[in-house]
This record gives sequence, structure tokens and C-alpha cells, in this order.
Amino acid sequence: MNKNEALLTQIPAGTKDLLPEDAKHKRFLEAKWAALLEQWGFQEIITPTLEFFQVLTAGIGTGLADDMYKFLDKGNRILALRPDMTTPIARVAASRMKDQPLPLRLYYLANVFQHVAQTQAGRQCEFYQAGVELLGAGTPMADAEVIALAVEALRESGLNRIQVSIGQVDFINGVMEETGLSTLERQEIKLALLKRDFVGLEQLLAKSQLSPEKRAFITRIPLLQGKQELIHEALTMTENYKARQALQNLNTIFEMLEMYGVSAFVNVDLGLIRDYDYYTGMVFEVYTSGLGFPICGGGRYDNLVEQFGPGIPATGFAIGVERALLALKRQGYAFPSQPERYAVIYAKGSEMRALEKAQELRETGVIVELEMEGYSTDELQSYKAKPGITKVVKVG
Amino acid sequence: MNKNEALLTQIPAGTKDLLPEDAKHKRFLEAKWAALLEQWGFQEIITPTLEFFQVLTAGIGTGLADDMYKFLDKGNRILALRPDMTTPIARVAASRMKDQPLPLRLYYLANVFQHVAQTQAGRQCEFYQAGVELLGAGTPMADAEVIALAVEALRESGLNRIQVSIGQVDFINGVMEETGLSTLERQEIKLALLKRDFVGLEQLLAKSQLSPEKRAFITRIPLLQGKQELIHEALTMTENYKARQALQNLNTIFEMLEMYGVSAFVNVDLGLIRDYDYYTGMVFEVYTSGLGFPICGGGRYDNLVEQFGPGIPATGFAIGVERALLALKRQGYAFPSQPERYAVIYAKGSEMRALEKAQELRETGVIVELEMEGYSTDELQSYKAKPGITKVVKVG
Repeated sequence: MNKNEALLTQIPAGTKDLLPEDAKHKRFLEAKWAALLEQWGFQEIITPTLEFFQVLTAGIGTGLADDMYKFLDKGNRILALRPDMTTPIARVAASRMKDQPLPLRLYYLANVFQHVAQTQAGRQCEFYQAGVELLGAGTPMADAEVIALAVEALRESGLNRIQVSIGQVDFINGVMEETGLSTLERQEIKLALLKRDFVGLEQLLAKSQLSPEKRAFITRIPLLQGKQELIHEALTMTENYKARQALQNLNTIFEMLEMYGVSAFVNVDLGLIRDYDYYTGMVFEVYTSGLGFPICGGGRYDNLVEQFGPGIPATGFAIGVERALLALKRQGYAFPSQPERYAVIYAKGSEMRALEKAQELRETGVIVELEMEGYSTDELQSYKAKPGITKVVKVG
Repeated sequence: MNKNEALLTQIPAGTKDLLPEDAKHKRFLEAKWAALLEQWGFQEIITPTLEFFQVLTAGIGTGLADDMYKFLDKGNRILALRPDMTTPIARVAASRMKDQPLPLRLYYLANVFQHVAQTQAGRQCEFYQAGVELLGAGTPMADAEVIALAVEALRESGLNRIQVSIGQVDFINGVMEETGLSTLERQEIKLALLKRDFVGLEQLLAKSQLSPEKRAFITRIPLLQGKQELIHEALTMTENYKARQALQNLNTIFEMLEMYGVSAFVNVDLGLIRDYDYYTGMVFEVYTSGLGFPICGGGRYDNLVEQFGPGIPATGFAIGVERALLALKRQGYAFPSQPERYAVIYAKGSEMRALEKAQELRETGVIVELEMEGYSTDELQSYKAKPGITKVVKVG
């Protein structure tokens, strides 16, 4: 045994080995999702794990740059491991796929990388996402399809008590516009809303020049959660054109989600802000029981593709695969049971008949583990099958 | 359009975007392989994309270190993108799986990273592998299973004219041992054999102290290719114990491959050397028509797992996924045709009925692309379906 053993069996913080049971569940889930997404007309796309840093930050600003794994290539250009799949897919849509008829419906099952200081179950530095991007359609119909598909995917995977929150970034942007606050102040307020740091929000507002009424309104934003009526209520609260357009947009999307039969799962949350800068319209997050963070998130990003070529509107979502697996586990989901698993064991010298038997059994569809050496008669009789083996076949 | 567009749509040298058609073929092939490998009792394992450099070089020496993508973590430890899956799986087998009953049968479908200066079709810096590791069995039965399974996987994927070359690293090691050459000289000779650089080999031998007979024998090694008779012939050429043991081992494996019914695809190649230092016994490579480099390679590595914990013998293979896809394409393989793909289009205001229709059709198993906005009566009549759509359904 090597004296560095303890050191040499370590893996980087925030990464994970998925042993056979977890890997099987992941494959099971991903196969289900792939089949569903394909039925809705989405086609898989695969992009490089590493990209130029400049590409990855083109749409999102450098906000996430600190959390990327960066390194230099042999020509000293900065490469990074992709922190999400939306930007790479926007790049492809604007370049190699730019002449294809719109809309483009693309999906991915991919690993992404974000350095997080505090890892925990469901928050890793390398993690897996299943997601879709619907590019080239700016209509509420596109947003509704993406939300309905996310709900369908999560329900189909067996998850219970799914709750979708939908918001619209232009509601807050519009409300901020009419405050006359500086860009910096607006950003600080949005950051406090993103972090749901309500004490910080109060403090920011207190030191601002805002009227008590405006302050009270902004303080109320995180509380603006409810069903469709809330949208109508909010329409009475602001005269700002952008904010009102955002509410109308949300209203149309909500009506379409009713048509899809999923509105029972959906709440409007006008304080919802997501951590990517590229969102320009509807945003949403999905929660499920037993998990303290969203299992899925997404939204509309109409200005990202134009960073790479001819601009087209787009909308999409990403599901956290490990989060889904964790939630299923916590909810007591019964994954399909192991199929029949045979062990073929044999007497010394009976190798040929043993492997013929193994092949014959495999052709009937069962899983066969062939022993790797022949046994004596005594050993054959006292053979104890290892866990998971449902039947032992003795040859010779 | 951004003025940096050309720059911003670049991807790093040696990486690739897989557009829907390629991604579909890859998924199709991998699903086939996963089903087959599972039937033979192998279970999937997933390991981190990035590992400590020290772990990745533990078994292979630093020979491949120059070709790894390396970078520093926040604590200044060297990380690298995995150049293959064998070392990470050896790490897991020796640590988190060390108490499981042997043998362990593990498989993977994963991307790996090796910096190559000259990329070309089938030789990329990021590429995909499908492979197995059979750990905890040192018998020829294990080596035969791995070779037979590689042949079965490649044939099942539809590839024509598969040719397997098998060798044994201890044949050359044994022959070298009796030469009395220095370690450096032996390494140079092995490198020349690996590169099939026969001119270089002649020069190395010419400046050595070897007898003309020994020189002639070593020069002949790359020519020692044939069927089982060649093993018997080679047994008459050397008295070295290690070399003779290697030949006996190869003979037993060859007989077992006959039992598996795959020996017709197999040639013995006593000059076969692979580019990883960790191989300790049987090594093999698989070729197919239309491809100038191996589509699959593998062999026995009995000293790798002990770098990370209790040592166990092991054997395995890796198939190059893109190489398989490239060979299938060049061989004119007919991938399954696209299933039925409907477009649902609708009159303005008929959104609800359109999405009901789409859902109804999806439930019958067909793929449905729903249009993203309603059309006027004229537009509905003049609608031209985009490529790939097999049927248009008009609503309203």
C-alpha cells in the first residue's frame, strides 16, 4: 500500500464519484427526460467542456467569472470550464446553426462547473444539468411551452409537490426606472432582492432619497406572491410602462399555462430575480418537497444570442440532475428494481461450457456475471453468491 | 452584430460542437453499448472531470503529463482534466469500492482530455470513450472476456471488418531482459517499437553492444504477427522465462477467444506496445475498415490499483466513440431513420386548441413541434414545413 494513499484517493472539493447505484439512477432519469424532450421536438446538442473565457463571459458579464475554473492554453489564451450551457448554445445558434429555420429547439444533458466555497448536498462545483433552449421565438407561447415542459419533465421523473414561481425581470426594472435611483443603487437593491436579504433591503432604502410611499412599495415587492389575481392587483400599483408590459406578459403566459393544465403548480412571484444577468423577461424557478433550493430554473434571454451573431429571442430552463435525484431519494421514490442477475460458476476445466452458458443466458435478456476461474467440487457446493445476484447457475 | 463575432464564435483547438444529427448518433450508439455492457454484468461509474494531477499521474508516470490540461485550484494544488478513465476508476476501486466482492465490473461513457498538437478527424483534444474495467481477476478468462466483449460491442454497433491485434508486454520485456541492455536503451527500443519507427530501431540496435543474432531477433519482433501458430513459433525463439510465460498466457487467452467464437477476428502481434506505462500483461488494439488508427485499445494493468490502496489485478478496454461514429459513416452505415415528426400550426386565437392537439399527438408517441404564434388564413394555406417535418397538422 502506498504511503500517500490517503492523499491519492482524494478528489477535488465539490466533485463527486457516482458509484453504480447513483449512476444507474442518473442514467434512468436522463433517458426518461431525453425521450420526453424529443417528443416535444427538442434535439440534443453537445458542446465542448472547455471554452474561451471571453465567450463564456460575453453575455453574462464578469459577475460569474470569479466562480469559473480558468486556465491558459498553450497560446496563453484564457480557457474556462463552462459554468452553464445557455451561453455555449447561444454561441452555436448564432454561428453554425444560424441558417436553420426557426425556432430552434435544443436540449442538453451535460456537466457544468462553478466554484462554490461551501459545498453541500445539491451544491457541488461540478454538477449535471438537463435543460432546453427554445431559440428564435419571442412569444408568450414559447415561454409557456418551456415552463409547461419543465413541469412535465419533473412530474414524469416521479417528483412530488412541484411548485413553480414565475416572475418577470422587467417588472422590477420598470419599477426601479421610475425611482430615479442611480444604477449602483438599483443594482444593490436587486442584489438584496436576489439574496432575499430583507434587512439589507430596508437599510438600502432608508439611506436612499425615495419617498416613503416608493420605499414601502419596493419593500413589498418580495411579498407580491400569489395566483393570477396578483398580476391584476400589481397593475393597479404602477404606472410605469415597462413594468405594466411585464405584468401583461406574465398574465398571458399564466393563461397559457392554464391551457397546458399546469397552472395549479404555478405561483406568481414578482420579487423573483435569478443570478444570471442575461435574463430579459419571464423568469421562473421550480421547487419540490424535501429540497431547500430550486430544482430547476430558467427564463427568457433575448439579448444573449446577438453577442455571437444575428440576434434572436430565446427562452429555456435547466434542471439540476443531482438535485432531482436527491429530492427523489428524500421523497422515498422507488426506482425500478434491479433486473434478474445471474452468476455462472463452473468446475475447473469447464470454461468453455460455462461461457457458452453465459452467452446463451444473455441472449434471453438476463444479466450474467461469469466467474473468472473454475472451482473444485467442494467450492462449487459451498459457493455463496454476492449481493445482487438473483440466481446461480453451476456448470460442470 | 458584435464586432468580435468571429472571435467569439471560436472554440478551443481540438474541441467540437456536436450538432443534433451527430449527438443523436452518439446517443444511439452509447445506449446500445450501455445495454450490452450491462448484460455482461458491468455497472456504470461516473467520476469527476477534474482530478488532482498527482492522482492522474500516480500510475502512468509523468509521460502523459505534458498532454494534460492543468490548472491550479484556489489552494494552489495542481488539478488536471482526466486524460483517461482507467486511473480514476482504479482510484475508486481501491478506496470507496474496496470492500465490495470481487471481481468488480465497471463501465463508463465519458469524455477525456489530451492535448494533441495536430488534431484531425478522430484525433481531438476532448473526446469520448466507452469502456470497461474488470477489476480483481488476474486470470486469462478475464482478459478473454474483455476482448470478446470489445469485439461484440463493435460488431453490435454495426462496424464491418473488425481486426483485433493482441500482444503481451512481458514478451518484449522478457526478451529485453536477456539482452543486458541498459534501462535507457530498452526504453528507446520500446519507444521505437511503439512508434513503429523501424529505421530508428535499426539505428539504436546498430550502436548497441548486442550480438548480430540478438539484433536480428529484435528487428524481427514487429514482424511477429499471425494466428495461434505464431505463439508456438515464438516459443522456439526465446529461453527467457518471462517472455515464455507471456507467450503461454497469450496462448490460453487465444484458446478462450476461440471458445467465444471471436478468434477469427484476432491476430497475434508480438510487437504490439501501447502508449500507457501501466500495462503489465495482455494488450490489444482493434481496427476497422476506413480508419487509419485503432478504434479501441486495452489490456491488463495489475499494478495500477495498488497505487491507491490494496492492490488487485485488472484488465479493460476503451472504445473511441467519435472514431466509431466516423468509421460507421465511412462504411455507409444506415442509422435509424428519423421517427414521425409533426408540426402543429394554428390560426390566431386558436392557441388553446393547438396545444391540446399537440399534447394529444405526443401521447400517441409521435414527435410534435408546436408553432410559436398563430397565422392568418392566408399564411396557414401557404405554410411550408421546415425540413424534417413529416406531417403538418392545421388547427382552427
